Parts: sequence; C-alpha cells; structure tokens
Amino acid sequence: MKKLAVAILLISSYCGAQTADSFVPASTNVWAAEYPRVDASGRAAFRIKAANASAVKLNFWSNPKLDMVKGSDGYWTVTTPPLVPGFHYYNFVVDGVDVNDAGSHAFFGGGRDASGIEIPESGATYYLVQHVPHGAVREIWYFSNVTGSWRHAVVYLPPGYDTQTTMRYPVLYLQHGAGEDETGWINQGHANFILDNLIASGAAKPMIIVMAYGYARRAGHVDPDVSKAPFGSPEMMKAMQELSQAFEDDVTQALIPYIDSNFRTMADRDHRAMAGLSMGGMQTFQITFDHLDLFSYIGGFSGASGMMMMRSNEKPDMKTAFNGALAAPAAFARKVHLLWIGVGTAEPPQMLAGITRLHEAFTEAGVKHVFYQSPGTSHEWQTWRRDLNDFAPRLFQAGSQPATAAR
Amino acid sequence: MKKLAVAILLISSYCGAQTADSFVPASTNVWAAEYPRVDASGRAAFRIKAANASAVKLNFWSNPKLDMVKGSDGYWTVTTPPLVPGFHYYNFVVDGVDVNDAGSHAFFGGGRDASGIEIPESGATYYLVQHVPHGAVREIWYFSNVTGSWRHAVVYLPPGYDTQTTMRYPVLYLQHGAGEDETGWINQGHANFILDNLIASGAAKPMIIVMAYGYARRAGHVDPDVSKAPFGSPEMMKAMQELSQAFEDDVTQALIPYIDSNFRTMADRDHRAMAGLSMGGMQTFQITFDHLDLFSYIGGFSGASGMMMMRSNEKPDMKTAFNGALAAPAAFARKVHLLWIGVGTAEPPQMLAGITRLHEAFTEAGVKHVFYQSPGTSHEWQTWRRDLNDFAPRLFQAGSQPATAAR
Repeated sequence: MKKLAVAILLISSYCGAQTADSFVPASTNVWAAEYPRVDASGRAAFRIKAANASAVKLNFWSNPKLDMVKGSDGYWTVTTPPLVPGFHYYNFVVDGVDVNDAGSHAFFGGGRDASGIEIPESGATYYLVQHVPHGAVREIWYFSNVTGSWRHAVVYLPPGYDTQTTMRYPVLYLQHGAGEDETGWINQGHANFILDNLIASGAAKPMIIVMAYGYARRAGHVDPDVSKAPFGSPEMMKAMQELSQAFEDDVTQALIPYIDSNFRTMADRDHRAMAGLSMGGMQTFQITFDHLDLFSYIGGFSGASGMMMMRSNEKPDMKTAFNGALAAPAAFARKVHLLWIGVGTAEPPQMLAGITRLHEAFTEAGVKHVFYQSPGTSHEWQTWRRDLNDFAPRLFQAGSQPATAAR
Repeated sequence: MKKLAVAILLISSYCGAQTADSFVPASTNVWAAEYPRVDASGRAAFRIKAANASAVKLNFWSNPKLDMVKGSDGYWTVTTPPLVPGFHYYNFVVDGVDVNDAGSHAFFGGGRDASGIEIPESGATYYLVQHVPHGAVREIWYFSNVTGSWRHAVVYLPPGYDTQTTMRYPVLYLQHGAGEDETGWINQGHANFILDNLIASGAAKPMIIVMAYGYARRAGHVDPDVSKAPFGSPEMMKAMQELSQAFEDDVTQALIPYIDSNFRTMADRDHRAMAGLSMGGMQTFQITFDHLDLFSYIGGFSGASGMMMMRSNEKPDMKTAFNGALAAPAAFARKVHLLWIGVGTAEPPQMLAGITRLHEAFTEAGVKHVFYQSPGTSHEWQTWRRDLNDFAPRLFQAGSQPATAAR
C-alpha cells in the first residue's frame, strides 16, 4: 500500500512536469490528470488507452459522436471543434461499450455517474468561486414517512447563517433534471457560487436553497411493469403519476416540515419558492400549482408544463391548463409573486417550441410572467446556470418584479 | 427531453417490477439499478452489456480478477463467492479497458471515480444511518495561500451545533488514503453516521471532523519529472518531500486557521486530534510530530510510519524515529493524550508486518499507545470504519486513555 501511495504521488509528479501547450487540463479533471485538455477557443482534446479496441468514439451527449484515432502507443485521441461554453456530459464508446474517462470527475447524469467537462465561458465569472463570503453547502438525511426511507438532500445556507443566529431566511426548493440527482445543482450547476456572488453584490437576498432527490416511491409500493405499454398509454400514465405524486407528497409532507424544523426558515408561502430544470421544472409546476398555499414563486427552467402539453403542438388553454389555476390571471398575479419560464435558444426544437408556446399562451391570456431565453445554449447546465442567475434576484424582494427578459 | 424524463421513469418502473430472488440490489446502486445484487451470505452478482467484447473480467481491487461469462443477450455475468463485508472498489475490464459499472455509484479511489459496492456485515449497525440525531456534513471552500488556490474540504458538525450556539467543540482532522480524496470518509467511510451513533450512545464526545484534500502543490511549484528515477532515489524522495511539506503547510497555515475562524472550535492542542488511513496515516504522523504544539491525539489507520520505515524489515529505533520525539516516552505520554495505531488482520503481509513491528517497537520502548487489530479485514474501508469507531470514543475524554486493544 505504501507502493500505491508512492505510485500516486509519482504519477502526479510526472504529469505535472509535462510541457505546456495552448491546451490546459480541464477544471473538471481529477488531480494530476493531463487529459482532457481545453484551449481558449473551447476546443477539447481527449484520449483513452484501449490497445485492443477496433473502434472508439467520443460521445458528447449534446452532439454527434466523434471518431477517435488510434496511435501506435495504444491511445485513441480526438480534438473537438470549439464547444459551446459550460458543462457537458460525455463518455467514450469503446467497441459499443460506454466508458467513463478516468481523467474526469464523475457527475450524476443520465441515471449514472458520468464523465463531464467544463468549457470556460469567456468573461463569465458569475458561477465561479470568488473572493466573496461563501455560504455553506450541507448534506442532510431525513426520514420520509411517505417513502418509508432515509432520503438525502443538499442544502445551501447563505453567508452569515452561522453567526447571525437570530436571522431567519426564505427558502428556494431547486430541482435537478431527469437522470440527475440532488448533487447536480452544486456539482454541475455551481448554484452555491452563483448565490454567493449574487448575495455579495446585493443582487439577491440571502436565502436557503434546498435541493432534493427527485425520485420517490411510496412506502410499500411496487411499480407495475409498463415497459411494454405504448407511449402515453393509460397504464403508463398511471404508473408515472404514482411516482410523481409520491415525490410531491415527500416534498410537501416530509421535506418541507423537516427543513422548517431544522433550519431558521421563514416558514410561509411568501418566503418559499420552487424551481427546477427539465423534469424538475415539470415537478415544480405540478407541486406548486397543487400547493399555492405553500409557494408564491415558481420557476421552470427548460421544462415547465406537463408532458402531454409539451408533446402536443397546440397551445395550452389557460382556462383549463394547470387545473384552471391560471383562468383568472389577475387573481393569480396577486397570489403568485413570480411565474418564470426559460429556455436556451439552441435547445432541441420540440423543447424550444414547447416553452415558447407556453410563453405565448401566458402572454395571450394575460398571465404575468418572465420569459428568459439563454442565447446559444442547449438543454444543458449553462442554460440553467443563467436561469438561476436571472431567477434568484427576483425572489423575496419587496414590491413586484419587472417582467423583463435576458440580463 | 420529455422523452428522456419518461424513459428514466420507465426504466425505474420496469426494474422495480422484476421478481425478487435471494439477491437484492446493493445499497451502493443508483436509483432503480437491479445490478449489482448481493445476498445474505455476501455473494454479489454483476452484469454488463458488451456484445462485441471477447473477454470481460470483474476486477475487485482487493481480490484476483474473476472471469465473466457471456450470455446470448450480450450481457456478461458473474456471481462471486461470499465477500468480506464492507465497501469494495471494483471495475469491469472489457478487452483490457477499465469500465465503471453504470449500476453503481462512483466513489473516488485509485485516483478516479470508481465503482464501489457495499457488502453488509451481519449485525453491524454502527456505520449505518439510524434514528438518532444527525450531525451536519458540510462542504467548504477555503483559499490557501500555501497552494495559491481554492481548496475543497468536508466538515462534520455534531448534532446540536446549530442550536447550541454558544457551545464550542474539539476538532478531529481525518484524512483519506492515497488515490482517494476528501469525500472518502463520508461516502465510503460513513464517518458521519459512525459519529452520530457514537455521540447518541454517549460513547464519544460531540466533535467537529474536518476532512481535507490530501494533495497539495505549493503555489508556483512545478514538480520535477522523477518518473525515471529509481525507487527511493534522492531526487524522488525530494520531490515527494516537497509535495508532502506543501500539504503539511496547507493544513497548519491555511486549513486550521480557517476552521478555527469559521467554526466554533476549541482552538488549542488539547482539543485537536489528527488521524488518517494509509497515506493519510503517514501524513498524520508527519504533521502531528512536526506540530505537537497543535495536536495532542494521533491516529494511524493502516499507515503510520514513514515510507522507508515500512519497507525495511527492521524495527524502528525509538531513539531516532520521528525525529526523536519518542526518545523520552514518559514525557511524550504526558504531552500526547493518545497515540493510536491499527491494522486489519487480513491486510497485505508487508502492511500487517510493518504496523505490527511499529506496535512492538512502541511496546519495547515503553511508548504508551493503543494497538487495534480489525479481525479479518484487509486494506479497505471496513478496517477504517472499525478504526474510527474505536478511536473516536478515546478522544477528548477527561483523564487518561486506557491502552487496551480490540473492542
């Protein structure tokens, strides 16, 4: 084992000594890993050793796969064209098998711990760690009577929480997307740094953020096998509805009471917000519209309306959508301080069109809301970082919110 | 993206509906993953799809590789014999390439995010989450002038820290092993649950635990390339010494001041302990013996003495070892409240012999210490969980510590 220690230290010594080129190791790399590497234009260079493989590809989930080329040393390499800034999931595909990059840290996405790489955005510092007071990121475990199990969540406490021990804070519940988990908003999203920076500049109020695990199965529940059911069939919809209702009950009956009991919150609807990305946005709309007694700020990041609404090419009817909650827009606006939806302009057409249609339907029906478009970004974390950076300053401020677009 | 959400939910629905056998999904699995599976005897069943591969092995790092067998569906499978209880790193080897198991969460070990599986230990609950008050696990980022960079660490705050706001606590600095990082003691070790349970039963004093990132490179330092230097050569030793001194300085000059400024600590040597596993044990001995003004409790878990001492087959001479700090055992025992070393009885022979020799040398020289042997466990986390469970109750108690062995 001493040998292991030595070997590890040596590897780091060796790699650290390699000559620099215009590419540098990505910030998402593990200690001393020289690959993947990025350059100032956003290109990224990858390599993996697979001496016996006959075909190796680089799979950026948001892009077509790239063929890698084998060298005489058994390493397969590829350098990408300039990539969209932000965080990208990826993996290698070695003779058809998905393989993580040992040089990159893993990030939970696509239902597994997957490789990810950060491509810097020139001039953008709002999501980077800076010399400002830092909030605390906490892991919590709460027992849920809804699921009959211990559940893990992540909580951001604003700077000063420890020392200003009589202060109470509003709370934002912030959800990850499908295939991700409660760690995503910190590890991929940098939500803590975004809030640190917004709070330091005075743009956002100090707030607590709660990031829950977005899957729940009711205690004792066994999912039916709907794998052979047609898409959208009643049995599939029922199975999904059961899971989704279990999560809603977990949030409202287990998580919120736990948070309000264990942290110094302002435990009323005027000081409680919920937002989420993609599937988390759908969950947000379901949960908040079912519980307007609990929430008064609502955000949908690249995912807001129900699944069926998104698939349809028709505009939702505000008389009936969301169980009619928006049928009286003026009353709704008095009750809900913020209704916010956003989408990246480079998202897949169905998503872009669906969110845009929802915005248009809101507008036509006179539903006060904010519509934010993230320029040039896709269904990825750079969109959602920008979303949070726009959304958070609008929370818990005195007076009403201007319905403006991009900042 | 809605389709993705649906697919994820469906996968979970489908898997959840599979019929049960005596094997159940491992606790380390991701949501809805049915493989790997474990049974009550500690056997584990694995599978991976690799339709085009010609040879697939299961690589438990602590055991010989096992051949997997290909089925007509393209899945390779294997079921292990009963495994030693505890946490084991592993990966698949597909035609020579290391591949993570998408069904398992990743844990940082071996210098990368690797798959891991938990084999339950019958009757052992001390490291499991239980219905007792839970401490908080925090992520912190501190700027180190030693490394010139932001550094991430993990901090455990005992139950009651938030509410008993005038209370101050002693601190244990607790280090991971080589190839691991600051997340290991929580994710693999369950240090938080171990302390929750010990504190709840009254066996351990409430304490803060700080888990630092055990690698550091001094600001501006470029490692020399020692990859071709003979093992133990002066240039290799010098390179390692520079890295190891940078970490020592980071702990004593950046981390400890940060912790004492930002948490309600008892900031003196009588209330400060350090321990670590493997490489972390070596770092602990280096740092504490260099700074007996800062520490009064010292623990080495499967790694305590210097690298050269471990390689030698001779007993260390207490007159000169550790810069002579143990040359006067009575004076040392008055100054240091606890000197603790431990090893698993199934560890590799060199490690077992090295730690045992150190225990014998301590005993012969009259150096008061605790020697703990973990029955049947190897250089793995089950040893270190037991170590912490034995070590922590001996910290910060009034009066002297009994120098007993295994509990």
